[in-house]
Amino acid sequence: MKVGIIGATGYGGLELIRLLHNHSKVESITLFTSSDEGALFSAKYPHLKGLYDFPLEAITKEAIAKLDVVFTSTPSGVSGQLLPDVANAHTTFIDLSGDLRLKDIADYETWYHKKPAPQAFVDKAMYGLAEWQDTTGAKVIANPGCYPTAVLLSLLPLLKENLIDGSQLIIDAKSGISGSGNKPSQGTHFTENTEATSIYKVNKHQHIPEIEQAIAMYAGESYPITFSTHLVPMIRGIIATSYAPLKDGVTETDLYAAYDKYYAQKPFVRVLQDATRVSTNQVRGTNFCDIHVNVDARTNRVTIVSVIDNLVKGAAGQAIQNMNLLFGYDETEGLTQVPIFI
Amino acid sequence: MKVGIIGATGYGGLELIRLLHNHSKVESITLFTSSDEGALFSAKYPHLKGLYDFPLEAITKEAIAKLDVVFTSTPSGVSGQLLPDVANAHTTFIDLSGDLRLKDIADYETWYHKKPAPQAFVDKAMYGLAEWQDTTGAKVIANPGCYPTAVLLSLLPLLKENLIDGSQLIIDAKSGISGSGNKPSQGTHFTENTEATSIYKVNKHQHIPEIEQAIAMYAGESYPITFSTHLVPMIRGIIATSYAPLKDGVTETDLYAAYDKYYAQKPFVRVLQDATRVSTNQVRGTNFCDIHVNVDARTNRVTIVSVIDNLVKGAAGQAIQNMNLLFGYDETEGLTQVPIFI
Amino acid sequence: MKVGIIGATGYGGLELIRLLHNHSKVESITLFTSSDEGALFSAKYPHLKGLYDFPLEAITKEAIAKLDVVFTSTPSGVSGQLLPDVANAHTTFIDLSGDLRLKDIADYETWYHKKPAPQAFVDKAMYGLAEWQDTTGAKVIANPGCYPTAVLLSLLPLLKENLIDGSQLIIDAKSGISGSGNKPSQGTHFTENTEATSIYKVNKHQHIPEIEQAIAMYAGESYPITFSTHLVPMIRGIIATSYAPLKDGVTETDLYAAYDKYYAQKPFVRVLQDATRVSTNQVRGTNFCDIHVNVDARTNRVTIVSVIDNLVKGAAGQAIQNMNLLFGYDETEGLTQVPIFI
Amino acid sequence: MKVGIIGATGYGGLELIRLLHNHSKVESITLFTSSDEGALFSAKYPHLKGLYDFPLEAITKEAIAKLDVVFTSTPSGVSGQLLPDVANAHTTFIDLSGDLRLKDIADYETWYHKKPAPQAFVDKAMYGLAEWQDTTGAKVIANPGCYPTAVLLSLLPLLKENLIDGSQLIIDAKSGISGSGNKPSQGTHFTENTEATSIYKVNKHQHIPEIEQAIAMYAGESYPITFSTHLVPMIRGIIATSYAPLKDGVTETDLYAAYDKYYAQKPFVRVLQDATRVSTNQVRGTNFCDIHVNVDARTNRVTIVSVIDNLVKGAAGQAIQNMNLLFGYDETEGLTQVPIFI
Repeated sequence: MKVGIIGATGYGGLELIRLLHNHSKVESITLFTSSDEGALFSAKYPHLKGLYDFPLEAITKEAIAKLDVVFTSTPSGVSGQLLPDVANAHTTFIDLSGDLRLKDIADYETWYHKKPAPQAFVDKAMYGLAEWQDTTGAKVIANPGCYPTAVLLSLLPLLKENLIDGSQLIIDAKSGISGSGNKPSQGTHFTENTEATSIYKVNKHQHIPEIEQAIAMYAGESYPITFSTHLVPMIRGIIATSYAPLKDGVTETDLYAAYDKYYAQKPFVRVLQDATRVSTNQVRGTNFCDIHVNVDARTNRVTIVSVIDNLVKGAAGQAIQNMNLLFGYDETEGLTQVPIFI
Repeated sequence: MKVGIIGATGYGGLELIRLLHNHSKVESITLFTSSDEGALFSAKYPHLKGLYDFPLEAITKEAIAKLDVVFTSTPSGVSGQLLPDVANAHTTFIDLSGDLRLKDIADYETWYHKKPAPQAFVDKAMYGLAEWQDTTGAKVIANPGCYPTAVLLSLLPLLKENLIDGSQLIIDAKSGISGSGNKPSQGTHFTENTEATSIYKVNKHQHIPEIEQAIAMYAGESYPITFSTHLVPMIRGIIATSYAPLKDGVTETDLYAAYDKYYAQKPFVRVLQDATRVSTNQVRGTNFCDIHVNVDARTNRVTIVSVIDNLVKGAAGQAIQNMNLLFGYDETEGLTQVPIFI
Repeated sequence: MKVGIIGATGYGGLELIRLLHNHSKVESITLFTSSDEGALFSAKYPHLKGLYDFPLEAITKEAIAKLDVVFTSTPSGVSGQLLPDVANAHTTFIDLSGDLRLKDIADYETWYHKKPAPQAFVDKAMYGLAEWQDTTGAKVIANPGCYPTAVLLSLLPLLKENLIDGSQLIIDAKSGISGSGNKPSQGTHFTENTEATSIYKVNKHQHIPEIEQAIAMYAGESYPITFSTHLVPMIRGIIATSYAPLKDGVTETDLYAAYDKYYAQKPFVRVLQDATRVSTNQVRGTNFCDIHVNVDARTNRVTIVSVIDNLVKGAAGQAIQNMNLLFGYDETEGLTQVPIFI
Repeated sequence: MKVGIIGATGYGGLELIRLLHNHSKVESITLFTSSDEGALFSAKYPHLKGLYDFPLEAITKEAIAKLDVVFTSTPSGVSGQLLPDVANAHTTFIDLSGDLRLKDIADYETWYHKKPAPQAFVDKAMYGLAEWQDTTGAKVIANPGCYPTAVLLSLLPLLKENLIDGSQLIIDAKSGISGSGNKPSQGTHFTENTEATSIYKVNKHQHIPEIEQAIAMYAGESYPITFSTHLVPMIRGIIATSYAPLKDGVTETDLYAAYDKYYAQKPFVRVLQDATRVSTNQVRGTNFCDIHVNVDARTNRVTIVSVIDNLVKGAAGQAIQNMNLLFGYDETEGLTQVPIFI
């Protein structure tokens, strides 16, 4: 199959290249860009010398129509405007940005402060939380956000099985700095972030409505959540720690049984029942999501932990997983990497 | 004045040396050790060459009796056994370990899994949360833990003024790796922790009862809290993010007014009302605690953030602040460093 | 083919597992250990849960005889004693330690301060610098050291073609901390190494005789070199910067022509002629070696730079490359990863 | 005394603020800026809240004339143009940039690719390598570069005493990323530099002529040197490793004797004769320069190592040391910090 990447120069794009390079079904990868047309990709990124020594291509309806799958990995506000113009009957689009995730474009405007995609196009997009959504027949996939992926995979079984009280959910997430993208700024400057952990966008992060919408879709519950995001001085990784009251009579065993029910057959979710430490480097470089849960008898509250690699399961990896599922390939095709623990 | 440090080779001890070196009232610093007697301190720590080129001394009752203040910065279970034996009428002891903090030694056994100090000696120790405790007349100070300091300074004004509902408190704390001390282990090995953020001791951290006890002491409220600890790949710094429901009718303005009431005259607490990002490197190397709070109108919950340097305000700095207060020096003596932002 | 790893719990072993996992010719991997027999490998390394959930096996002559290839990735002094006892007519051994590299066991004793392997066994071992050594027929491969690989690949073409004066070679190498292995120590403790670059083993590093021996073997020249090693605060990567006088009449073009002569057909060596910056993350996670050279007209000296991933091209990757070459597989089988630039 | 800082928002400026804050002779610090006039300094740098809550001031001849000392810490090409216009009979200027260091402004143009300061003004500036230059009477000090400081302090005693052959000097230096300043770029972006050590400006670094000029000035020798610069993933610190042939009959003891001759009375130079490891964190946050030397009998070459904090001894600290010496204060005034080893 022939695939294309719009936004190849961003980190999501780079990671798609890294993973698709060894995908047995992919015969060619066209790299598009909205700003650096003609630039030699390996000149911009010397680590790709000998691997991708050809120029970035301009985005045209014709070039795109020749491809089976196009991944868009662009900053907020780009793909939502671009895709309606270049869509066609043949190509499947998998959008890694947040532009197509919120079902109501008014929510998009509120949280993203950008011009939304047309409502009609958003209506065509299917949210692609791979372990929870049957995307059969979809031509446009809204690939989930990094934080929502880590949070939802760990919470949905417990909410769906009515084991915890979601109305009091507190979610405290921490991310490596690659989540901020490849554009240099004071907030991503080496010297000012190496010995720094910070909180940002307090109660204003655009992933809040995405998580709430998914809880409503998959667990059938609606309430506002508290969700915080922190930046920690590492390149990759998200750890999400969530807290909720346990429902009456529920035990820790019940919680693990719920995970087993939903994930026993899912190759990328690993449940770590006996962990004394759960760490982002357990999943680094891979599409795994590791989950651990602990009941505190003193407070009758549950602490739920999940870790992912934000660039893989939280972006490019899940996008490829979605492609595999859509095209009937083995779900793990191209995603069989062993974690780079060190 | 003559001071001594027991446990000088640990990180708390090193930080005491760093700060006391420029304290105008300190005329000598005796370095004790329980394990390396006779070793040349600057041989073990070459960064101190030319500054502390003399051998570590054995701990004796006589040597200690000559000193005005002795700081103990030892692993759990050491000072609680040692201090009752070497105490005297003259010397003031400031203990940086957790051995003397919990008023009930049964709690100590439960949470620390070590032999407790004698109850009678614990009874003599005064908890030294410097902004909240009048320690006049104390001869033994239990210097607060690193996490409790960050948490309590940010929560106590809001709890004491009855502005938030402490019974639903969720506290999610993140610490740099120096909090684990100077003993090498897999959990502090460079390669396995540099690209890793992890959760550890879930619902089992020994600082939980210390925080609960202090809330009872200073805010008059008793309930179990949920408190989690994470290890992030930086040397220094703690960021504590706490969540609680707002009491009826309370506004964000009320919260900042409470901070103003308790901290307007406190030199080391800085309240950052308009911060868009709060980061541990704002206080690095100093005794400052920076606090920010945000009300989420959607959930009616409040997000409370505080940052400290775990080795300074969370250990050696607060210990020196306590010494200053006890001896009637300027509270900031020896603690006027500008943060090492970079 | 069936492969085994002795010393699987070390970093070389972990990296062999990571790479062999996706090697199409490998049907099984047996993990041996000299110290943790019976331990569940994924319990020790949770990042391998679901991938290697079986116990480490004891090392026996019988178990080894069933395998086609056995990699030994053990600390100095182990494989040199072990392998003579377990060798057999069928199995090929690829030793990642330094035990079999120095042709004269007296040199081994001088530089490693350990008991050497028997001279007769060392005589059977072939040094496996993959781009320079034809290992056809070898049953025992001494896989090159990490530093020597980076250094030799960049120097040998220039020395062999008589373009630089090797008798005045100065080699200044810098390595990430994973080169120190997985055993915690003060020298690998996170807090004491994160903001630290250091020099160690000044003029005493055991890779000095290995480099000198290889220069003699492949370039036919013998002289003592100056070689220094530095530890830099990153996990992976070596950058070696070498300096030598240019021979009379030689130009920078000649130097690049020499690289082209030896490496144009070599898939893992990339020559970066126009680089303004050469960095270890250009090759991270891969078997690539990137090389750059610059002539300084002011001094008539040449500056030669090479970067590798010390755990891949400097250890496990080159070992697999050697296996591929020995068994007639495609040289890149299992080694087609794209660099993890971020 | 009243001091001012031009370029306070840069890292050199921030470090001057950090150090001068506790300098007993400094009664006020005026912060100037060429670009952010009127901005509240603590708004830009929240770590200074409560310490420097006043606006940056515009640079005027009148404002400057009221000050005793003005430090300029500006990018290349700024102070060389500015200072001739604002100079006056009263104020002493200490320039931390490279604009006034090279005696011949043609060299400046060649290496800096910027418009040079007027030759007449450069003629007035005295190079301020504090341990080697008597600056009595100077009104304009050209504060040495970070790399030259580390290199020269370690080499000058050996060259001056004719113990090593400088004509074959190879200097390989490694710096933390703060040396690149506070302006974000791809080359200082967290994600692309955290797991990266790189070489840059090969044989083109502007500190080359500065080192050569100082060797000529203080050791009376002229030759081109080979000098390389590497970027390592830490915030602060420079380690310079230099190599040269030993002169006939010279011993390692002679080398240490030379250091003793020049530095026994110098408070900031520490010679570490028995070090097995020399590391940048031994001097972090301080004005120390640690030096170690080792003779290799095999090659008859000497390996010389020195470490400094590039922002302190390599910039702000040495500038204050120069101020102290010029004004007759204790050389260590404001510079008595203990290294922040962790």
